[in-house]
Amino acid sequence: MDLMDNTIMLGGPVKMHPRVLRAMSVPARAHRDPDFIEILKETKEFLQYVFQSKQDVTLLFGSGTASMDAAVSNIVKKGDKMLAIHNGKFSQRFHEIGNTYAEADELAVEWGKAPDIDAVAEKLETGKYRAVSICMNESSTGLTNPVKEVGKLVRKHDAIYIVDGITAVGGLDIKPEEIGADIVLLGSQKCVAGPAGLSAVSVSERYKERMYTDTVYYLNLKKHLDKMMQKNDTPFTSAIPLVQGFHEALKMVKEEGIENRIKRTRNMAEATRAAVDALNLELFPDRKYASDTLSAINYPEGIADKDFRGILKEKHGVVIAGGQEHIKGKIFRIGHMGQVRMVELLGTFGAIEAALRQLGYRNFTPGAGVAAIEEYM
Amino acid sequence: MDLMDNTIMLGGPVKMHPRVLRAMSVPARAHRDPDFIEILKETKEFLQYVFQSKQDVTLLFGSGTASMDAAVSNIVKKGDKMLAIHNGKFSQRFHEIGNTYAEADELAVEWGKAPDIDAVAEKLETGKYRAVSICMNESSTGLTNPVKEVGKLVRKHDAIYIVDGITAVGGLDIKPEEIGADIVLLGSQKCVAGPAGLSAVSVSERYKERMYTDTVYYLNLKKHLDKMMQKNDTPFTSAIPLVQGFHEALKMVKEEGIENRIKRTRNMAEATRAAVDALNLELFPDRKYASDTLSAINYPEGIADKDFRGILKEKHGVVIAGGQEHIKGKIFRIGHMGQVRMVELLGTFGAIEAALRQLGYRNFTPGAGVAAIEEYM
Repeated sequence: MDLMDNTIMLGGPVKMHPRVLRAMSVPARAHRDPDFIEILKETKEFLQYVFQSKQDVTLLFGSGTASMDAAVSNIVKKGDKMLAIHNGKFSQRFHEIGNTYAEADELAVEWGKAPDIDAVAEKLETGKYRAVSICMNESSTGLTNPVKEVGKLVRKHDAIYIVDGITAVGGLDIKPEEIGADIVLLGSQKCVAGPAGLSAVSVSERYKERMYTDTVYYLNLKKHLDKMMQKNDTPFTSAIPLVQGFHEALKMVKEEGIENRIKRTRNMAEATRAAVDALNLELFPDRKYASDTLSAINYPEGIADKDFRGILKEKHGVVIAGGQEHIKGKIFRIGHMGQVRMVELLGTFGAIEAALRQLGYRNFTPGAGVAAIEEYM
Repeated sequence: MDLMDNTIMLGGPVKMHPRVLRAMSVPARAHRDPDFIEILKETKEFLQYVFQSKQDVTLLFGSGTASMDAAVSNIVKKGDKMLAIHNGKFSQRFHEIGNTYAEADELAVEWGKAPDIDAVAEKLETGKYRAVSICMNESSTGLTNPVKEVGKLVRKHDAIYIVDGITAVGGLDIKPEEIGADIVLLGSQKCVAGPAGLSAVSVSERYKERMYTDTVYYLNLKKHLDKMMQKNDTPFTSAIPLVQGFHEALKMVKEEGIENRIKRTRNMAEATRAAVDALNLELFPDRKYASDTLSAINYPEGIADKDFRGILKEKHGVVIAGGQEHIKGKIFRIGHMGQVRMVELLGTFGAIEAALRQLGYRNFTPGAGVAAIEEYM
């Protein structure tokens, strides 16, 4: 495997455009220099554009998990109750974070299934939750949750609605105001196709009114929001090269147009699902809720994850993801968000076909997966 | 001013070597790829080398302030008492952080002066402090604190000794074990001359035994230390490009040799102080405690900060820092850590001489500052 030149088809980090790479290698500059403040100002505006929202936004200097921590730790504290609706590895994390800072209850849903709306309603009626969390797009299972329906219930109970949009914002057509979200999270290395290491949030007026201002320090949202919205600045030192790369990646979304980016992501997903069908494979999640940014696919019987992904990576230079936790070895996952092109998806499925055949799975006409993708081009 | 080509002489971010810039612009890779794990493993070893310590280390994915937050929030919680010894902007921050997570007391010392050891002893006797914080090198005032003397007292009272080494580690000869520090912090964009956005800590066995494991989530030290020390990995997604750049910067310290890097930093500082004398200027801090990584210099009467630094930047492309908080306008600060070369210091002082003369300060022989530096070459 050649680290400098391969086909990255993960659920993030995703491929970065050469413009993004170049933006990161600019010589050092002062983080409060007017030129850098201008970059932060544009980044703020691009973020609102990508969130498709008029709400306040801010960058956070940490990965998606930092934004999950901030979303929770600024709104609940010991004595408060929170509900984590979870059906995958990432939404589960909210339960842990909730229990770190407050008392978290959980609504555990089978992985790959959407939560039952009645079960959510019932759970919400049992307790006075100050906040409720959900993951918009569970990249561990390739499932997009019905965040709008759940949102209506959360709003009815007047709780703060925390929506992890880390692998969704910039790739799915889900607007914070339309789903009633109070805080939506974004990861820099996902649909926007920037470098790993940054996250961002879009927050409602309700969230701002209710948030605590002194529960945490580095991830204090009030400080970040005030600095960003009022001064195009950050309370602490920026991760300068990452901001430069992320700014360029956001600019590329703007140039493409957010509607076009979302449509292209959907096309990639539909092409992927057509290829999956043509190879007589099955999606892991309930198809009705299949994600447009990442596809999780069940292994056919007898195909070992290690062998399959090993061949893809070592022999063909194609990097895809496996399953996590209890579905490790049972599924493989293909990211098709951001800057990934249809040509790369074609190449990936060609390599998948070859690897499956090599490992003895031949329940498909050679070339059928690739041909299904060609239909979309 | 040309952002792409100037002389950065700040207390961080500092100039990055072209090798560091190049390392950041490598195409995307998976953060759990064996090749990246190897980079993390070397980073861990380089960190122990630069900390000059055998203690456990870990990276943190956030700026220096993230490491300050982590150092405090993992060792004190509501009900615990902490003491913040402060004599500058950065050590003051510990007082704020301490009050966010616990109850913090303060020993406020005049900026530019070292704390009186008897006053520290007296303070320590008034309360049962679980932790005591200090800043090794106050870059807001150009002062290096007597951390070893204070450390003896802190150890005598069996408190955890938190030492901010953000602008010191990799530039000053201060070893964690020798000063009795329980946690020492490092900033990526300071003496190591890496990109802004990362920090690291070196922690003692005592700290590990006493630290809380469930007070915070994203900045949880137990999770970070366990992953890094046992698996060369990180609990959450790495800021991949920053790690690549920081790894290269650390490698360059190893290649130079930490003793040589520290010696070179001291030479730069002595050359700077000789130039300051030759220009009949004065250091802001007590000379006995003058920092070797950054010099803070009083403005001569009648020189306005805005004009002086404006000329340096716009006309000569030299970026230095001003004063902060109540000493804003009273001092200017020159960073001389990391990869900054003597030739750049020469150029900087040439520009300083020209700017001072332009603004009417002529109490020196033209060329005297530069000549004083030449003595060192």
